[in-house]
Amino acid sequence: MDYDALFQTQLDALKAEGNYRIFAELERQRGQFPRAISHSENTPDQVTVWCSNDYLGMGQHPVVINAMKDAVDRFGAGAGGTRNISGTNHAHLLLERELADLHGKEAALLFTSGYVSNWAALSTLGSRLPDCIILSDELNHASMIEGIRHSRAKKVLWKHNDPKDLEAKLAALPANAPKIVAFESVYSMDGDIAPIREIVEVAEKYGAMTYLDEVHAVGMYGPRGGGVAEREGLMDRITLIEGTLGKAYGVVGGYITGSVALCDFIRSFASGFIFTTALPPAVAAAAQASIAHLKASNTEREAQRQQVARLRAKLDRAGIPHLDNDSHIIPVMIKDPVKCRQLADILMQDFGIYVQPINYPTVPKGTERLRFTPSPYHSDADIDHLVAALTTLWKRCAISHAVA
Amino acid sequence: MDYDALFQTQLDALKAEGNYRIFAELERQRGQFPRAISHSENTPDQVTVWCSNDYLGMGQHPVVINAMKDAVDRFGAGAGGTRNISGTNHAHLLLERELADLHGKEAALLFTSGYVSNWAALSTLGSRLPDCIILSDELNHASMIEGIRHSRAKKVLWKHNDPKDLEAKLAALPANAPKIVAFESVYSMDGDIAPIREIVEVAEKYGAMTYLDEVHAVGMYGPRGGGVAEREGLMDRITLIEGTLGKAYGVVGGYITGSVALCDFIRSFASGFIFTTALPPAVAAAAQASIAHLKASNTEREAQRQQVARLRAKLDRAGIPHLDNDSHIIPVMIKDPVKCRQLADILMQDFGIYVQPINYPTVPKGTERLRFTPSPYHSDADIDHLVAALTTLWKRCAISHAVA
Repeated sequence: MDYDALFQTQLDALKAEGNYRIFAELERQRGQFPRAISHSENTPDQVTVWCSNDYLGMGQHPVVINAMKDAVDRFGAGAGGTRNISGTNHAHLLLERELADLHGKEAALLFTSGYVSNWAALSTLGSRLPDCIILSDELNHASMIEGIRHSRAKKVLWKHNDPKDLEAKLAALPANAPKIVAFESVYSMDGDIAPIREIVEVAEKYGAMTYLDEVHAVGMYGPRGGGVAEREGLMDRITLIEGTLGKAYGVVGGYITGSVALCDFIRSFASGFIFTTALPPAVAAAAQASIAHLKASNTEREAQRQQVARLRAKLDRAGIPHLDNDSHIIPVMIKDPVKCRQLADILMQDFGIYVQPINYPTVPKGTERLRFTPSPYHSDADIDHLVAALTTLWKRCAISHAVA
Repeated sequence: MDYDALFQTQLDALKAEGNYRIFAELERQRGQFPRAISHSENTPDQVTVWCSNDYLGMGQHPVVINAMKDAVDRFGAGAGGTRNISGTNHAHLLLERELADLHGKEAALLFTSGYVSNWAALSTLGSRLPDCIILSDELNHASMIEGIRHSRAKKVLWKHNDPKDLEAKLAALPANAPKIVAFESVYSMDGDIAPIREIVEVAEKYGAMTYLDEVHAVGMYGPRGGGVAEREGLMDRITLIEGTLGKAYGVVGGYITGSVALCDFIRSFASGFIFTTALPPAVAAAAQASIAHLKASNTEREAQRQQVARLRAKLDRAGIPHLDNDSHIIPVMIKDPVKCRQLADILMQDFGIYVQPINYPTVPKGTERLRFTPSPYHSDADIDHLVAALTTLWKRCAISHAVA
């Protein structure tokens, strides 16, 4: 059997529909963010990154860099094993304490990634709580969807960010079954924010536990960076808060926080936690330094908000439509995978602006977009350059200003 | 509903059967391996780690340490995004080329962990190849089991390391269905090694692709550390070789290698690859340095083999039974979770020897064990101290010398 031919057939189909992905090959330069060297063909040597999830540029912050290098010097490169078999390092425990404190919870549990934390926690809860039902916002992230799928628990989808629909779904379920209401605070692709209070109140009314993914919010929202739930004063009413160390905190890794019993339960039963090498102590130390810094400093958050507002205003003035939302994410809708790729290619090649075309399966087909994430390190001149480039393209490509 | 009570009930059951896990809290010290500071209660301040998967001590090798720190200085802490959205760094591509070369394959694909590489690759292959059947060695690792389960492909178990049984199972399947024979080279808990040649020949006869997990072999077997398949001259006959950067290479991360079409297929369709932040460039650079070093140097492999042989011989002389195998893993069977934990506690508290008790679900119930992994950095004196301690305990606890 020609397996390569089987693979190639599906890859060809992806190419035919315009959804084949080409990764931009970058070389980040500490101290130069958002500038990076481009190793991709037919691109300028240096580009400005406009689509990073290193939202606050913490990946190059001296506090983080120094913590990481110092920890490599002290502890070495890797953790040396799974958490159970020689891999638990003091740095992991310090980070877990930092995370529990960040969200006002009793305990935290570290995972190798945000993806794994969602997948492992939801698959474990769904499979081990007898007759558990998971109520999932219809736009939840792939990692949550796969975790729920893997659990084989009963899944009920509710309309995106719609507490009324959630209530209707909850009311129709048996009162005595364990239930989990799973949702995100900031949805990464549209940048809209969940009505957390209303969702929590509905969940409480029906005795459901709440599972909140704050990966696109931690570090950036709330007075200490605890996320949207911190900003709204709701952290103590949420059963489990999940987050990442790989976006605003600038490193890598994921986590959950909650009660001691909850974290111990996931720690003890989750395959994706048990059977994997622990994160390097240096990664844990760098992440802890980043969190501690953003608990105390508002500088980065304020500068980010300012540049986000500035880009929005300039886009409005130029007549370039973008999705309206209350977050730091600015999606410009193109609604066609081929056009989206073409625009991104021209921005990169002619203007040194790197923004990845976002296509299926990251977003539904027909909602392809360019997604801009201004950071504290994008200057006013960077913003002007971007808006000028988009204005030129909007004219050149004759794309209607009314596409969104 | 009292969710904490639901969690606690299952935790209590785990405790009652002796399978509740207590992690040793260590502080690795670069340059001192296998010595580490212990932060656990009732333990000496410094202990000797006897159960690390940093098999060759590369986690503290100057080549690795310097590569990691230099890369942090140059590129910063994190990758900044998923591989598709601004997260592909030049260091990832260099590492993937190094890995493809290591295994003599056209291409390689990097994942956040070995667990994720197995889970994502097998779940994608199993779900996307029409009517695919996966033939899985009955003792395969949890990450492979979960990947196969997640794929919902038809699964056929074959007897551990038994090509005859594999052939019987293959012969009973439809000739024209895609088939994957999934197995490991070194099984981590018993330390036994698969008859790769016989398995490959059976798979070829029935037109099945082969999926080989070499995580407990890469770096340590074969003239360049390419694993058991390299040692046996079989790499080119295996469709997909999977490995880790978190064990003998001393860092963290996982990968697959294979044809361009195969790697592109997984890259394009695997949820666990697409929707997760890429590994930090500094992790990739450290891993690449480690692989490159072990391609050229046999010093670490030879010293490891010597100390493994030495420990085995000393255990034999002391009459302490251990599982016979051809690998670097020395399991001393205890066959009871409570006794296993007690022995490990005494070794830690009274002798400063840290070996984690291995219990369910890592091994089947009734096969609990202490698992020793001598490295090039365990001295002759360390080995003498370990064997003396075990001898004392074997007498003190009146455990029959015939338990294995």
